[in-house]
Amino acid sequence: MGSIEDAAPTAAPTAAPVHKVPHIERLAAWSSALQYADLPATVVEKTKDFFVDWYACALGGRHHPSVLAITAFAKDMGRVGEVGATSGSEILHEPETKISSAFAALVNGAASHVVEQDDLHNSSMMHPVTLAVAQDIGADGKAFITACVAGYDVACRVGEFLGPSHYAKFHTTATAGVFGATAAAARLLQLDAAQTLSALGTAGTQAAGLWQFLLDATHSKQVHTAKACFDGVFSAYVARAGLLGPLDILEGASGMATSMVPGKARPEPLVSNLGDAFSIMQSSFKWHASCRHTHASVDALLSIMRQHQLAFGDIKAVVSHTYRAAIEILTRSEGAETVHQSKFSMGFVLAVAAKHGRASVLDFTEAALADEDLRAFQKRVCMILDEPIEAAFPAQWQARVDVTTKAGVTYSEFVPIAKGDPGRHLTREELEIKALRIAAYAGVADTQVVKRTMERAWRLEDETSLAEFACL
Amino acid sequence: MGSIEDAAPTAAPTAAPVHKVPHIERLAAWSSALQYADLPATVVEKTKDFFVDWYACALGGRHHPSVLAITAFAKDMGRVGEVGATSGSEILHEPETKISSAFAALVNGAASHVVEQDDLHNSSMMHPVTLAVAQDIGADGKAFITACVAGYDVACRVGEFLGPSHYAKFHTTATAGVFGATAAAARLLQLDAAQTLSALGTAGTQAAGLWQFLLDATHSKQVHTAKACFDGVFSAYVARAGLLGPLDILEGASGMATSMVPGKARPEPLVSNLGDAFSIMQSSFKWHASCRHTHASVDALLSIMRQHQLAFGDIKAVVSHTYRAAIEILTRSEGAETVHQSKFSMGFVLAVAAKHGRASVLDFTEAALADEDLRAFQKRVCMILDEPIEAAFPAQWQARVDVTTKAGVTYSEFVPIAKGDPGRHLTREELEIKALRIAAYAGVADTQVVKRTMERAWRLEDETSLAEFACL
Repeated sequence: MGSIEDAAPTAAPTAAPVHKVPHIERLAAWSSALQYADLPATVVEKTKDFFVDWYACALGGRHHPSVLAITAFAKDMGRVGEVGATSGSEILHEPETKISSAFAALVNGAASHVVEQDDLHNSSMMHPVTLAVAQDIGADGKAFITACVAGYDVACRVGEFLGPSHYAKFHTTATAGVFGATAAAARLLQLDAAQTLSALGTAGTQAAGLWQFLLDATHSKQVHTAKACFDGVFSAYVARAGLLGPLDILEGASGMATSMVPGKARPEPLVSNLGDAFSIMQSSFKWHASCRHTHASVDALLSIMRQHQLAFGDIKAVVSHTYRAAIEILTRSEGAETVHQSKFSMGFVLAVAAKHGRASVLDFTEAALADEDLRAFQKRVCMILDEPIEAAFPAQWQARVDVTTKAGVTYSEFVPIAKGDPGRHLTREELEIKALRIAAYAGVADTQVVKRTMERAWRLEDETSLAEFACL
Repeated sequence: MGSIEDAAPTAAPTAAPVHKVPHIERLAAWSSALQYADLPATVVEKTKDFFVDWYACALGGRHHPSVLAITAFAKDMGRVGEVGATSGSEILHEPETKISSAFAALVNGAASHVVEQDDLHNSSMMHPVTLAVAQDIGADGKAFITACVAGYDVACRVGEFLGPSHYAKFHTTATAGVFGATAAAARLLQLDAAQTLSALGTAGTQAAGLWQFLLDATHSKQVHTAKACFDGVFSAYVARAGLLGPLDILEGASGMATSMVPGKARPEPLVSNLGDAFSIMQSSFKWHASCRHTHASVDALLSIMRQHQLAFGDIKAVVSHTYRAAIEILTRSEGAETVHQSKFSMGFVLAVAAKHGRASVLDFTEAALADEDLRAFQKRVCMILDEPIEAAFPAQWQARVDVTTKAGVTYSEFVPIAKGDPGRHLTREELEIKALRIAAYAGVADTQVVKRTMERAWRLEDETSLAEFACL
């Protein structure tokens, strides 16, 4: 490997030719060298917040048919041991067994992408891998946190590199996520820069995931995240064992850019501000259980109702001023015939929020679909394209909402930053509330276990081991 | 699922609207319903030939670093048992252990793609999966053969569908192969048409493999085949457990055609002559251990030498008249600095063939690289573009060779079909010779085991079980 420094553009023209270091080589070198001591306290705390949020989301998926099918495969194929075994990792929803790390990552990676309450969208990839590998090798809390931070940066930067034209065809959560999963596993395994680069090359040549499943509501979303986690573990472990991966899978002549986003890749984000601006700080939490495009509108509606002490029955009409993508996506599910669709109907979501004062995972139910009051309210909501809000998208997902009361008064509120986005991240109290709601939704009988696990997560940097982390 | 018949184009215009059945649904229905009794005897015999050929190739990869790394991963992650365990499958090069089927497929799928003597390129995908799954579930020889035939057809037809523009970017052996691996596993598991379609959908959304590894001679070729085998087993097993895959991963609006080969996919081959023309009959064996583009030239040279009783020392010059792709690919490695490169140098390959009367895996060695007689001969070989041969390519990989002796006589021979291609398939005697040469190359001490395994393969349809198939 060469130096991790790129060729300096200010070098004198008479200097000897320099090896142009591929961006991914610099990213691999940075990731493999990242130390816990390099992390600002705010980054450490935020990493724990996202870990708790992921843990809750993973609990939420425990009954989904895709998760059950993948769990059956894992237990059939994987090395399964008892609690107390010296190696092996937890399946969060079946902590009575231990299983080899690649399969724990596979199953937990599937489970965390079911309730669609995971962050956008990286901890659902990083945490299944870091937890599984850390449990397998006995890594401590600091190593775990460091690996998460490295994985976030690698996944987010590769996602930026691939850009929107890739996202239009491929499920970037998986195709970029597999790089983050690999980097996180590689960091925990203490791979050196060259091994990490090999692992990332192997990751990239496995990157896959198409949107076709959206057209018939099949289970590939869980397959994508599960397999990206598995493939990340695979890539790191085989690199440790000597398997060589391509050296420039991103920008090489037959790499991802050429083959998947010709002419559209954006190399700069791969290394800009590396080590200064940590990607995890720019991730978002989801507070509401509905489509992300409804969130600012829900925030605005609830704020108006709170400020003016309005009840569900007081409201005559709601207008959501929003951006074009929200209108396009939310119009498709306007009928809200299934629970899943109801989270993608602006009218239904605002009705739920107005009635319950929240739009949590507990509020989108079959009973809600049959609620005539909600259905009536739903019809009194409309969306309007707002040019300044459109201009701010997708950097910001804003909304302005007008609420007209039956008394004939109209209140308006603009929400520049949706709750959960950077600048309005969730508090730990809110994260715990959200986690317990998801646990309730998932039928977790003993919430004390969930609370104890969260307590342990809040002081993760002091833990010497993550063994038996989630004894549900 | 609808009928497997497509909408008849001759239906009266007043007929009720018919559901247009996707091609992949028809392919899945055919594959899931294929019976041993449907197979002509020639297809059964050819399937056994390819199985023996694959088995030998898999032995040949046993010492490669990529195979060792993937084996270490498999034994770390997989369910490992002893010989005699009631379930589990063999790693061909470590038959003293049994391992869960997905990992046997993973390891054997990697091993069979090392020596580059496997057929073009399907048994290296199908057989690792069919052997592993058949051993896992106790399927008999007839079920094994039927699953192989189904898998070949599905892989070849999807490969045709994706076409050359896909192959230019993606390693089709893997991206189409994963469909064949899935179909083969699904057939052995006796999945119904709907489950098989789900499995194929899940396979397609995992399809991956880029050519970047060719640029730095890294190990992704083995990763691609290994992972496609693993993913095929995964797709079939999770479909059996209830996981739903996209219904039209090939031609759906967000499927492989749109996302990977926009405007270039060719649907007809997916179903044309389904059940009449079996794809396995159109596969090729490799007789020589060199690049496929040298084969017809080697055949021609050896034929001339045989007919005219020429010795190595009699030859002054050789001209190979060939097609453009051969010249382009073989020119890159003309220096033949490594053993691998030496198989991609027309001059070196013809020198080896002239000296040894063959170009087997035993003849490309470090010693050969240092052989001054070979190096001198190599320089007396040239390639010339031949227009009629170019016009016949890629349907046929022909060559005409002119040999000029030191006595000043020139002999010429045209080879319309290279040895190993359909119409000139290898005999069983040749397959056994090839297998034993590869076993010798791979350092297999006890060739009796290899011979016994081949004997068993030749009467595969009579076997009630494939357990302990390869007790090396």
